[in-house]
Amino acid sequence: MSSELPTGAPTAGPIAEVLSANQAFYDAHEGADLSAMDVVWEHSERVVCVHPGWPILRSWAQVRGSWERIFSGPARNQFILTNVAVSVDGDTALVTLEENLIASGPGLTGTGAIAATNVFVRDRRTDASGWLLIAHHGSPVMSR
Amino acid sequence: MSSELPTGAPTAGPIAEVLSANQAFYDAHEGADLSAMDVVWEHSERVVCVHPGWPILRSWAQVRGSWERIFSGPARNQFILTNVAVSVDGDTALVTLEENLIASGPGLTGTGAIAATNVFVRDRRTDASGWLLIAHHGSPVMSR
Repeated sequence: MSSELPTGAPTAGPIAEVLSANQAFYDAHEGADLSAMDVVWEHSERVVCVHPGWPILRSWAQVRGSWERIFSGPARNQFILTNVAVSVDGDTALVTLEENLIASGPGLTGTGAIAATNVFVRDRRTDASGWLLIAHHGSPVMSR
Repeated sequence: MSSELPTGAPTAGPIAEVLSANQAFYDAHEGADLSAMDVVWEHSERVVCVHPGWPILRSWAQVRGSWERIFSGPARNQFILTNVAVSVDGDTALVTLEENLIASGPGLTGTGAIAATNVFVRDRRTDASGWLLIAHHGSPVMSR
């Protein structure tokens, strides 16, 4: 199941669920909300995160630590998400999109496009109905 | 199922199969071998590829076109793969690693580390036993 958006973004079904989980990730980032990040990510050894320009971080402990560090800094990021595509295959979902970043903070302003790949898995815990982020990879798109 | 390598890299089972598919991808890249790339990737609309600094490419047609363009250029890349981790969940596998790049070509030399995320799915075609690449995302790691 694959969908490039917006072409009538679905409001139900797995693609809508994944889009909702994806939006929760960016809301947590914009809000610098570590508790919200706790809800977005799977808490496991397999999670991986590559922030733009950073080396690979692995395990929830390392990934959570990076968000803690980012959120404790002065920068606040706002995103306009464009060019979003979702594909769902069983219990795994792949989201790619462009994060059009508006960064601000003391002495910090900037804009830029980040290409992002996000991998979600279905939350299999009892009574769960959502999706959990297991991989995020962001990289700056160079102007050509 | 999750494995950070090398800690006795397995020689059988899904993790070994995924590592083999992953190696085939880098062999195709090093060999600038488009036919080998044809074998590595799923030929579908859902495939995505982000080369370092590039925008998102989607669909096998676009992704194949990018390899064709890269392979027709003068640069030849050699990789030393380090810090490889694999996790397999049902029919989906996630590989992260560092591509330690040694680029060479007329007027082109350089080294650098690329953080890469590769997503594979089990090949469900009749008589298939391998894994197909559906997403590759590479980004330069900045020195700090």
